[in-house]
Amino acid sequence: MNGNQFGRLFQVTTYGESHGKAMGVTVSGCPAGLELTEAAIQKELDRRKPGQSMITTSRGEPDAVTINSGVQDGYTTGTPIGMVIENKDARSGKYEPYVTAPRPSHGDFTYSAKFGTRNWGGGGRSSARETVNWVAAGAVAKLINEQHGITVKAHVNQIGDVKAGDVTWEDILENTEENDVRCADPDAAEKMREEADRYQKEGDSIGGSIYFEARGVPRGLGAPRFDSVPSRLGQALFSIPATTHVEFGLGKEAREWTGKDRNEDWQFDDDGDPEPVGNKHGGVQGGITTGQPIWGEATWHAPTSIPKKQITVDWETGEEKEIQVVGRHDPVLPPRAVPVVEAMLNLTILDFMLLSGRINADRLDNAPGKYDTEYHPRSPHNE
Amino acid sequence: MNGNQFGRLFQVTTYGESHGKAMGVTVSGCPAGLELTEAAIQKELDRRKPGQSMITTSRGEPDAVTINSGVQDGYTTGTPIGMVIENKDARSGKYEPYVTAPRPSHGDFTYSAKFGTRNWGGGGRSSARETVNWVAAGAVAKLINEQHGITVKAHVNQIGDVKAGDVTWEDILENTEENDVRCADPDAAEKMREEADRYQKEGDSIGGSIYFEARGVPRGLGAPRFDSVPSRLGQALFSIPATTHVEFGLGKEAREWTGKDRNEDWQFDDDGDPEPVGNKHGGVQGGITTGQPIWGEATWHAPTSIPKKQITVDWETGEEKEIQVVGRHDPVLPPRAVPVVEAMLNLTILDFMLLSGRINADRLDNAPGKYDTEYHPRSPHNE
Amino acid sequence: MNGNQFGRLFQVTTYGESHGKAMGVTVSGCPAGLELTEAAIQKELDRRKPGQSMITTSRGEPDAVTINSGVQDGYTTGTPIGMVIENKDARSGKYEPYVTAPRPSHGDFTYSAKFGTRNWGGGGRSSARETVNWVAAGAVAKLINEQHGITVKAHVNQIGDVKAGDVTWEDILENTEENDVRCADPDAAEKMREEADRYQKEGDSIGGSIYFEARGVPRGLGAPRFDSVPSRLGQALFSIPATTHVEFGLGKEAREWTGKDRNEDWQFDDDGDPEPVGNKHGGVQGGITTGQPIWGEATWHAPTSIPKKQITVDWETGEEKEIQVVGRHDPVLPPRAVPVVEAMLNLTILDFMLLSGRINADRLDNAPGKYDTEYHPRSPHNE
Amino acid sequence: MNGNQFGRLFQVTTYGESHGKAMGVTVSGCPAGLELTEAAIQKELDRRKPGQSMITTSRGEPDAVTINSGVQDGYTTGTPIGMVIENKDARSGKYEPYVTAPRPSHGDFTYSAKFGTRNWGGGGRSSARETVNWVAAGAVAKLINEQHGITVKAHVNQIGDVKAGDVTWEDILENTEENDVRCADPDAAEKMREEADRYQKEGDSIGGSIYFEARGVPRGLGAPRFDSVPSRLGQALFSIPATTHVEFGLGKEAREWTGKDRNEDWQFDDDGDPEPVGNKHGGVQGGITTGQPIWGEATWHAPTSIPKKQITVDWETGEEKEIQVVGRHDPVLPPRAVPVVEAMLNLTILDFMLLSGRINADRLDNAPGKYDTEYHPRSPHNE
Repeated sequence: MNGNQFGRLFQVTTYGESHGKAMGVTVSGCPAGLELTEAAIQKELDRRKPGQSMITTSRGEPDAVTINSGVQDGYTTGTPIGMVIENKDARSGKYEPYVTAPRPSHGDFTYSAKFGTRNWGGGGRSSARETVNWVAAGAVAKLINEQHGITVKAHVNQIGDVKAGDVTWEDILENTEENDVRCADPDAAEKMREEADRYQKEGDSIGGSIYFEARGVPRGLGAPRFDSVPSRLGQALFSIPATTHVEFGLGKEAREWTGKDRNEDWQFDDDGDPEPVGNKHGGVQGGITTGQPIWGEATWHAPTSIPKKQITVDWETGEEKEIQVVGRHDPVLPPRAVPVVEAMLNLTILDFMLLSGRINADRLDNAPGKYDTEYHPRSPHNE
Repeated sequence: MNGNQFGRLFQVTTYGESHGKAMGVTVSGCPAGLELTEAAIQKELDRRKPGQSMITTSRGEPDAVTINSGVQDGYTTGTPIGMVIENKDARSGKYEPYVTAPRPSHGDFTYSAKFGTRNWGGGGRSSARETVNWVAAGAVAKLINEQHGITVKAHVNQIGDVKAGDVTWEDILENTEENDVRCADPDAAEKMREEADRYQKEGDSIGGSIYFEARGVPRGLGAPRFDSVPSRLGQALFSIPATTHVEFGLGKEAREWTGKDRNEDWQFDDDGDPEPVGNKHGGVQGGITTGQPIWGEATWHAPTSIPKKQITVDWETGEEKEIQVVGRHDPVLPPRAVPVVEAMLNLTILDFMLLSGRINADRLDNAPGKYDTEYHPRSPHNE
Repeated sequence: MNGNQFGRLFQVTTYGESHGKAMGVTVSGCPAGLELTEAAIQKELDRRKPGQSMITTSRGEPDAVTINSGVQDGYTTGTPIGMVIENKDARSGKYEPYVTAPRPSHGDFTYSAKFGTRNWGGGGRSSARETVNWVAAGAVAKLINEQHGITVKAHVNQIGDVKAGDVTWEDILENTEENDVRCADPDAAEKMREEADRYQKEGDSIGGSIYFEARGVPRGLGAPRFDSVPSRLGQALFSIPATTHVEFGLGKEAREWTGKDRNEDWQFDDDGDPEPVGNKHGGVQGGITTGQPIWGEATWHAPTSIPKKQITVDWETGEEKEIQVVGRHDPVLPPRAVPVVEAMLNLTILDFMLLSGRINADRLDNAPGKYDTEYHPRSPHNE
Repeated sequence: MNGNQFGRLFQVTTYGESHGKAMGVTVSGCPAGLELTEAAIQKELDRRKPGQSMITTSRGEPDAVTINSGVQDGYTTGTPIGMVIENKDARSGKYEPYVTAPRPSHGDFTYSAKFGTRNWGGGGRSSARETVNWVAAGAVAKLINEQHGITVKAHVNQIGDVKAGDVTWEDILENTEENDVRCADPDAAEKMREEADRYQKEGDSIGGSIYFEARGVPRGLGAPRFDSVPSRLGQALFSIPATTHVEFGLGKEAREWTGKDRNEDWQFDDDGDPEPVGNKHGGVQGGITTGQPIWGEATWHAPTSIPKKQITVDWETGEEKEIQVVGRHDPVLPPRAVPVVEAMLNLTILDFMLLSGRINADRLDNAPGKYDTEYHPRSPHNE
């Protein structure tokens, strides 16, 4: 409604601005019985963290998460998980020149047009810094999904005109986190890094894209029409800052395919259940999962903060002026967007799992130890 | 939540199956004071109706709408508008062969996997017939949007490998409804029609795509993050059956653009307000509108119902069997999807207009006559 | 949001005005596999129907329901159930005197103040006629609840100063539907009927109250805080027209009780599970069910439509005028509100059952025959 | 959905347990341009704070609030306001005896029955400590409401059998905060305090009730049916821990009134608008406001934590045992519930104001200084 909430049963509510005091996320609807530590969340946050490499901003944020509620003796209690991540390296002062002179292609003007004001430090609420909240929440969802055999992984498949070659699911799992650009094709990764470096040195930036896939998602997940899997994933992915394109399965190319070529016959799988003979459909038919992997692609435009000279207007002085956005900015977005994409997929899929009852919304079936009876709390006496 | 509802203030709830008794849609949250007739809605329904031309299904549905509530003396009352469209030419019998043997790439199997059953007449609930409800609701939204200077229009820009040439906004407005394929480029339209004919004669079908644009949307519309304009439009467009791709502005191509080339400087417009010098951004920055036209593109895969031989499996007999889907089916989807895309855009944009208070959610400012005082009802005595 | 929707997983959306063309209700989120006929719904509608007795309005509505979707071969399919009930005996003409001169204590003025207009035939959208939709939806919920051992029943426990004596659960089940006022105490029922008759003859009306109870609701149902069982039931019950009071368990009287006297010790039940030794708490502790019956009471003010002379003002003429609301009106509300209260309880409780996963939101466990495998549809060949 | 969220446009999301690390609340949907300081919120929190007097728990919580986001240079920005209140005096150890032996009439058992676990320190998530979040959010709503002429006030009108005498609105405004029990009748207040003391000394506790009123609420606010003003307020008030009863206007007594006596004629007010001649209706007709004050009453049962001996069962040992809840507990709830009731009323009413467009959801009309143009942010250069 107001833009700060995602999910229906697994509800994520966030707050925070780029250079404000702290970022925060509340996860309401996490079932009880999940083993959860700050360390598990931190692991995902570190993948999104600035300053990981030469091609990410040098802003020095530790992105340390604090869990304020919802966990007791290391397990979730079913009540909301409140998390806070403080902004340690906020330096909003340098954004003063842009207060009334919007940076080209940022949200500076549109936020001011909506609210009559904005938090003008960095991107304020529109900053990609907000995605730290999503990754924190997604880390919780990922733990539950993985317990239920669902694995989500993404990698960067294009930067500028450098494309990744063909890669397998195993390549994606094994290679992606091994290089700075998070591309599953090591050779392409090296070229992508060079491409990003080159644009950065020129004071410019470059666009790119991500391939994503979710395996182990059971068949029959989703809902008719407005809550179809692509509808909800479409909302989720277009929420990520700078996303300009989303497609599933054959995607944009499907406009050139015939029905006969694109349709996939049915066969019986090893369990005697129907399965399509291929997966050009991207894991979803009629908006509901077939049990095949969900896969697709999304595009991020080039970062808008660039040192090259641009022109803006100052609505206070009424004058045009030159602008050079010198700060600590990424030259390309997808490498750091990979964990964000994974987070949004995990959040969306878990929500569907809860809605279908495949995972109980009150508590996990596989909760350990003291969760074996209906009302038994985890007591200090019986660890 | 359950897939049958769209919108937050302007809420659309739908029901109905392809070969069921009737389709129905409830519009809750339409402000009072809108002049509304069944004829105005019918006009939009007729654009989506089957049997309009050689390249649409010959199913004989009049798609006549009945308004059951929410309108008095020709004006909306602010209370929900209930509409019913009866299915007159339902013939579910011919679908019996597919009851336990799913048609390739339809939702037959996935619906059965979710619900343990399905309405097996045609596509049942997953059928594009459902979009008749959306167009009915969208017709209401369109009337309000147009009163507020907002115009939404779409046209088919590609079928198979036939692409429309460059067209202006005026071309789209003037030419689109003049040909069967709804393409604003008359020459391309002719070739597209031939393409569709050719595939249909072969017992096959073909994919295609639509370009859409919304003009007159004020700046500052939208919300941060999960309710950004692209997020909500992404959900809306991916809800349309067979959509495989959505992009806004430069879209997929943005992966190959640099920041310097894609970024757009600011200038003052004639009113002295900042405006971007171009519109590669597609009308939205930071998830919120700039006041420039919103534009983008979406793709529909080829219709899956084709007479060509395909293979399926019957989960009851455990046997493989050949299948030929002979019925009354469209050879290509975009021509009839144009009014559906427009409907979803109108619904989404109106919802944002209401949320921002630009249009009052209780009643329209420009309501005529008897709405000039706060509590004056439209009386039979003072028409 | 707009007032026409109730429920989170079992979502009810309604439309219709007192003297409009038809009432309509869409039930979205009903699991597949429920045996459902129009007759089963009609049975509940007949309990709410006008003209049942001397103390109900003589408006001649058959209240015949038509199911437009969501049911196939007698079983629900998991897709939305669209129902329509036509208004057959609408006579809005007689309401013309009140178009700009609001009837005392009706919603005439407030609806006009909000919307700048209103459907002025009878109560329009504010009419208790709308509850026909709720009872139709509640009938579906009741069938599912009863399959899961949950029984909801209400009876009239006071009209004017006539109070029902002590009655047992069995009395309520057996006696309530045996008399016109729906009171489980036959002697009091007789006196209540006389009371209602007397006021009606005087051209007046009288208030009353209902006791409600739900048995078989499992322990652990509900949610913390804003979605506690009393919160949601409170919303549900205060939605019923003319409700002025709701209480649970000891209710209003609890203000005079000490903790020691009200608190209930714990004991083991026959299964060795903890249970409170009494049920002054009304079946809910901390907002979540204990497994004891949920019980409480609600009050309806006297019907506002009375033939006795009253004074109103005409905002068009600016003049005061006398008013006598002669029509077909109930002299007391609770007798016909009993099925409405039961409907709202059934809807609310089923929603909690679905949210907790105790009933699967996709399909019922106990679905018969062809629902025994995961994706098996109900086929015409294997009835 | 999950119990941790309230409001539709003005959305409040909360987390925290009685003896957890911190309480937290996110307010999403607060319009931009509100002057807001931690001190303004603190002022309300201090009214709810423990340890204010002899008749409140002696738990030593400063309840200091930190605003993490959504405010810049002292004004709200339209983006979510994240607030944290740390638990400083948490001492969960003393609750160990109750881990598997539920305290009588608490939520101990029901939370465990739902989630299979619970935060067993104090009431955990079910504790009234959670209402600190509501008061923080309500403080924001109150500021906006008061700017728009809406005043909400409550006072304690009964404790045990001590009832407040007749008081005026001015008495309530002036006297309520002048005594420990927050009763507008000073003489009754003194007796109430004695009553509470007496029960506390006996190791017992006592119930009580609150009268609430909201003035300045414009006519025409609310929505039909399920989102009527009483429905939403009913949900709001029954969310407060230990509430057992809610009524509006004549309330429970209405069951004994005739239509003629309860109905209120219409007259013209000073502006020539219709107004009811009295306010037995409680400010709402047909679920929508008349412009008269909204008023009603609610009851809180006696606090369940009492030192007197009670019996419980330990589900781990399978044995019955005696229990004495010695801790720092209030002997009566309404005195500290007064600010909570006011908070819930302010939140609910503001939500309706935003939904009706009477207050713009993006930004306040009366925002000072730099908010005078559409897109002008508050700059450091032009304070």
